[in-house]
Amino acid sequence: MVNAKDVPENLEWSINVTDGTKQVVAVPELRLVNKVWLGSKSVVGGLILTVWRFLVKAWNLGVAEPKKVIHAVKVGLALTIVSLCYYIRSLYEGVGGNAMWAVMTVVVVFESSVGATLYKSINRVTATFLAGSLGLGVHWISYKAGEKFEPIIIGISVFFLASAATFSRFIPSVKSRFDYGALIFILTFSLVSVSGYRVDGISELAFQRLSTIFIGTSFCILISILFYPTWAGAELHRLIYRNLEKLADSLDGYVIEYFDYEAVAEDSNHTKAMKGYKYVLDSKATEDNLAKFARWEPAHGCFNFQHPWKQYLKIGASIRSSAYCIEALSGCMDSEIQAPGIGYLKKHVSNACKTMNKFSSDILRELAITLKTMTKSSQMGSLVREMNIAVQQLQISLRSIPNCLIAPTSEDTTDEPSRKTCITPLVEVIPLTTFVSLLIENAARINGIVDAVNELAGMVDMKHGNSNAKTTQ
Amino acid sequence: MVNAKDVPENLEWSINVTDGTKQVVAVPELRLVNKVWLGSKSVVGGLILTVWRFLVKAWNLGVAEPKKVIHAVKVGLALTIVSLCYYIRSLYEGVGGNAMWAVMTVVVVFESSVGATLYKSINRVTATFLAGSLGLGVHWISYKAGEKFEPIIIGISVFFLASAATFSRFIPSVKSRFDYGALIFILTFSLVSVSGYRVDGISELAFQRLSTIFIGTSFCILISILFYPTWAGAELHRLIYRNLEKLADSLDGYVIEYFDYEAVAEDSNHTKAMKGYKYVLDSKATEDNLAKFARWEPAHGCFNFQHPWKQYLKIGASIRSSAYCIEALSGCMDSEIQAPGIGYLKKHVSNACKTMNKFSSDILRELAITLKTMTKSSQMGSLVREMNIAVQQLQISLRSIPNCLIAPTSEDTTDEPSRKTCITPLVEVIPLTTFVSLLIENAARINGIVDAVNELAGMVDMKHGNSNAKTTQ
Repeated sequence: MVNAKDVPENLEWSINVTDGTKQVVAVPELRLVNKVWLGSKSVVGGLILTVWRFLVKAWNLGVAEPKKVIHAVKVGLALTIVSLCYYIRSLYEGVGGNAMWAVMTVVVVFESSVGATLYKSINRVTATFLAGSLGLGVHWISYKAGEKFEPIIIGISVFFLASAATFSRFIPSVKSRFDYGALIFILTFSLVSVSGYRVDGISELAFQRLSTIFIGTSFCILISILFYPTWAGAELHRLIYRNLEKLADSLDGYVIEYFDYEAVAEDSNHTKAMKGYKYVLDSKATEDNLAKFARWEPAHGCFNFQHPWKQYLKIGASIRSSAYCIEALSGCMDSEIQAPGIGYLKKHVSNACKTMNKFSSDILRELAITLKTMTKSSQMGSLVREMNIAVQQLQISLRSIPNCLIAPTSEDTTDEPSRKTCITPLVEVIPLTTFVSLLIENAARINGIVDAVNELAGMVDMKHGNSNAKTTQ
Repeated sequence: MVNAKDVPENLEWSINVTDGTKQVVAVPELRLVNKVWLGSKSVVGGLILTVWRFLVKAWNLGVAEPKKVIHAVKVGLALTIVSLCYYIRSLYEGVGGNAMWAVMTVVVVFESSVGATLYKSINRVTATFLAGSLGLGVHWISYKAGEKFEPIIIGISVFFLASAATFSRFIPSVKSRFDYGALIFILTFSLVSVSGYRVDGISELAFQRLSTIFIGTSFCILISILFYPTWAGAELHRLIYRNLEKLADSLDGYVIEYFDYEAVAEDSNHTKAMKGYKYVLDSKATEDNLAKFARWEPAHGCFNFQHPWKQYLKIGASIRSSAYCIEALSGCMDSEIQAPGIGYLKKHVSNACKTMNKFSSDILRELAITLKTMTKSSQMGSLVREMNIAVQQLQISLRSIPNCLIAPTSEDTTDEPSRKTCITPLVEVIPLTTFVSLLIENAARINGIVDAVNELAGMVDMKHGNSNAKTTQ
């Protein structure tokens, strides 16, 4: 077979037919077919590969977070159950053919957390009721005003109410609680008042829609609470104590990396743990969202209705404030200069630093356990005291540095060394002192986290625990 | 009149009637009426006060950000125009009574930025078309399978497609571009396939719905682009250069506060400018959202379609990295100790610090102007060079500190002072050196911002400017 590549652009192939004439064979066409075939093969191949990669990614996500698969199955289940309204004749006629609204409600209201589902359900039902009543009122007034004025009155009221409700969605207090409600208010009011112009029996229609929406939201709430519920509050709780653990790991990681670099140089787990603070830096939006939904949730687990979720945002903010400090600390890692005296100085403060930092990260882990188990820690007070003492010790050991600037040379290790006056210039000590002073600043910020968690403990009834965690001394 | 307060609980008032008997007067009832009156007065008063405060807040918001009022009016306008479908008989009958879908589309699709409106509109129309076609296909198959199997086939397909589409919304690549589309896909597919069981002429219905949705989205897109458009891209652009300006103000503020505290002690504007970096810390979620919508927008202003909005996120991240540094800097302000030698030392590095910082904040302001005008700065190269030279100068002036640790006493100001050896302990210099070394670290991070902006300049055609801003020397 001739390879398509080898055929020049305008070449014609001919064969001698039995009657002596020549007949042209349509080779260029064959070439085109070949090209199209190859092209479409690569397109289809690429498409299959893309789809395959997408499926692999989806599969990995599902394996990593089975909660998301469960949520998807729950939505499918809720929709299938609500479709029963269509299949069962008595149900379908009971809602006057408005079963569509139940399906629609399930699709838009069912969210991945119970809190979000409740927020949307309550907003939807309330806003539909309010806007429906108002719409009926406007419809009645415009009807009484006569056919000529009807569209004008309805038009003006739709314009003003829709504008006002849209604007109200920008006001922070409305936005955080009733954003979805305002949207549904505009939707229902427009539909009811405008439909009234064409549809007869509008009040029955409004009532039937309200009842189908009620059916839809009830299904959503029941299914989201009864089958493997995902509580926004519990998620927020978990996020906060995991962030505390990540911060403790980062802090430990940086101190080990700085003082005992050789021990962890090639350890990828260590590097990963060190970067944990970055999740903390970026978790504000998630925390805000979860807290917004958590307040709609009923009592669950060890959380009452109206658990002080706002305090979690305060704790989150104080955790982030410590994460900023660690971020600045990470900047010190690169700027280190290996000057002659530095090794000695580093050794001089190393123990005090490590001790202080051990208390800092122990406090963070103890706070994480306090939150995780909702049990007051009996060790917290002593840990904080010891951390503050360690900070003072560190400052004392820094205070004794001017003598150390006159570093002993290696050969003089006898009891009475003849010290050489090789003063290390201040500029070479700065990376070390900056690192240490950021650690001290971080200890102060950790005190802030302790205060925020204590405030939370004052708001809710925490159990008193005897020995929460591994002992720290 | 008797004051209600003065009447004991069980007291009865009586009067002598002419026939000699006594008659009880219903004073306790009067007291109750009084109580209810007072109570309801305070409730109504409280309600009026709350509503009044809410209105004042809304008014202030409207005055501060007229864009939000304009958006609200635009939504009102779009809804009123779309309602015309109901008022004009020929239009209403043209869409077979499905005008409701146009109203609904306008309410849910009209967002405050053009990009978000386009994102939702395109997602809605595409998803409705795809899901509608698929729904009709499933309806046809189940119809052919016979009345017995119809609900089963429809139920199973709704369950699996809804679950799959819901799960796909968690996959990052789908979530960032087609989240709304996946929701509408589930909605339309369920409605079309399930409705098919009861409604005749389902394909006409599907077509009519698609056309009303098309009408609704067209109105939204036209109105959002034609009347005072708010472009997500332009908003992102503005956010980024304003963050640069805020960062420059904060940086200047902290350096002035540290070295010339007296000059700004009582200046509230100064304190406000200093806190500007906090907006930068919290702006990640807003930036992500705006970038998500900006890529749907057509060319506008100086931005082409497919302007490299992702690069703005990189610039934003590098700006935040500098803001973290300033946050750590703010921690140094409190921990200052006034030791004898510190004043002298502070003076020693003050000029070098201020010079370096002047270049840092000038670079930030120059970057802001570069972005604002989309004009390459001719000074940027020299500014960066001079900042780096200033950093070296600062390090040299730090390097000369060991001599300065022997501070001259106040009485010895002659040409050849007999220096006293009052060595300042290192620990008292640390707050100062930490402050300085964070400033140096910040200069390195500002270099990162310059690189990110240069990358952007390489991606788009920026004009070459001669003299952008105020001269810096």
